[in-house]
Amino acid sequence: MQRGEVAGRRPALNKDTRLCISLSGRPSNIGTRFHNYLYDQLGLDFIYKAFTTTDIAAAIGGVRALGIRGCSVSMPFKSDVIALVDEVEPSAQVIRSVNTIVNDEGRLTASNTDYLAVQRLIDEHRLDPSQSVLIRGSGGMASAVGAAFRDKGFHDGAIVARNPETGWPLADRLGYEHLTDIGSHAADVIVNVTPIGMAGGPQERDQAFDEATISSARTVFDVVAMPSETPLIVAARAAGVDVITGAEVIALQAAEQFERYTGVRPTAEQVAAASAISRA
Amino acid sequence: MQRGEVAGRRPALNKDTRLCISLSGRPSNIGTRFHNYLYDQLGLDFIYKAFTTTDIAAAIGGVRALGIRGCSVSMPFKSDVIALVDEVEPSAQVIRSVNTIVNDEGRLTASNTDYLAVQRLIDEHRLDPSQSVLIRGSGGMASAVGAAFRDKGFHDGAIVARNPETGWPLADRLGYEHLTDIGSHAADVIVNVTPIGMAGGPQERDQAFDEATISSARTVFDVVAMPSETPLIVAARAAGVDVITGAEVIALQAAEQFERYTGVRPTAEQVAAASAISRA
Repeated sequence: MQRGEVAGRRPALNKDTRLCISLSGRPSNIGTRFHNYLYDQLGLDFIYKAFTTTDIAAAIGGVRALGIRGCSVSMPFKSDVIALVDEVEPSAQVIRSVNTIVNDEGRLTASNTDYLAVQRLIDEHRLDPSQSVLIRGSGGMASAVGAAFRDKGFHDGAIVARNPETGWPLADRLGYEHLTDIGSHAADVIVNVTPIGMAGGPQERDQAFDEATISSARTVFDVVAMPSETPLIVAARAAGVDVITGAEVIALQAAEQFERYTGVRPTAEQVAAASAISRA
Repeated sequence: MQRGEVAGRRPALNKDTRLCISLSGRPSNIGTRFHNYLYDQLGLDFIYKAFTTTDIAAAIGGVRALGIRGCSVSMPFKSDVIALVDEVEPSAQVIRSVNTIVNDEGRLTASNTDYLAVQRLIDEHRLDPSQSVLIRGSGGMASAVGAAFRDKGFHDGAIVARNPETGWPLADRLGYEHLTDIGSHAADVIVNVTPIGMAGGPQERDQAFDEATISSARTVFDVVAMPSETPLIVAARAAGVDVITGAEVIALQAAEQFERYTGVRPTAEQVAAASAISRA
């Protein structure tokens, strides 16, 4: 197979071509473009396509029975699939949330590459576990982010969430403080895991933390990836604070997923190009 | 989408691309090449790939749950899938054998396009139901061929099969005579539905009927498609007898399948080109 001949077109399919899929309530084209672009660049005989389903048990049974090699899992199926696989790795077990299933000849192993990506970013950015961490949000991704910090040894943590029904149990599981007041709190690492700053959302122009909290932090981490230059990230850069962007999380988790499906680790440059194309 | 730009390459996949598959014990590349070639020629946003499985129930459940649009079925699954679909059309019901499943938003309908193709060939070649028909063979395809003739009104028929355990029940179901003696029998239409004359088989150079039977027939029909010019067809042409070849059966059944999956009927020329490429 020749490499990267015509971007955006696929080599001819054959009976041995491996299929990877995604399952989500509302499929997008992002994963389909990301993975197929890299298959083409790397000369891998794989295809990837997004699917949805109204019967997650039968869909996962079909993944197993059809030998579909990999299955990315999004909302609302991230918890439901736990009961349907053969093995759940610690990355998914700890947060009871799966985003990746690998099929080894009928044996399905589930993991969570969001959790793994956040842990890797903590390492790459050399964050110190003795620092305090303040996480805004209490949904599924906040659970992955919080567990990644806690499991990297961050014991001085707080969850800021208006909704006590999700905020309190999450803080409790992590052994972190629970704050309902979104006002000014200081911490060394502050993390936004809410939709604040997301393009097209109702709080598109808002900052998830106020200026005082930003300027007193050592690192500002925003999980929002569309855009990756959120008002929070822009303010942090202006204040001279180190940043970790949602684009880094997405790229790392996707590269981790890609490697698990294909056995090949794309380079950072290839991942960046695939990310750019998949969001174009 | 542009049509037929680069033969053998596929347009970029997206979340709305429809997937069709085949399920068989030993997948080949023929269907994958045939359907993908025509998708490309006709500018259809479909892909097709062969699969196998060790769990046919879960595989068909996956077809339904994943919204896989079409599923071609080969040995050894042709009977097993009857219990797994929502509706069985007469073409498959009459021979208890399915080769095509169409998924309409979770509702699976099974049919047999081999049976339908033979019926269409009987019409196209204007065979007269008052003629006698002699069918050699008693396997699944012989059952489809026999039922197609009987249901087109051919009542004067015989099944020639060495194995009485399959030959007798088939003849009985059709209301035809059962003959175990492969010797000389005369009939207006003689049909070979055994592997005799098939390339690579142990009887590759043999004729399924003797010269006297061939020269006294009005039509010689050979279901063997690899090659379509079997020793039987060659002898029939030499004797000036009309012929129907296995290539015609395969092309018609595949075109029927293609139309059921996509809603588009390819032209005879497109089907011929796809058949040639799929067997190259």
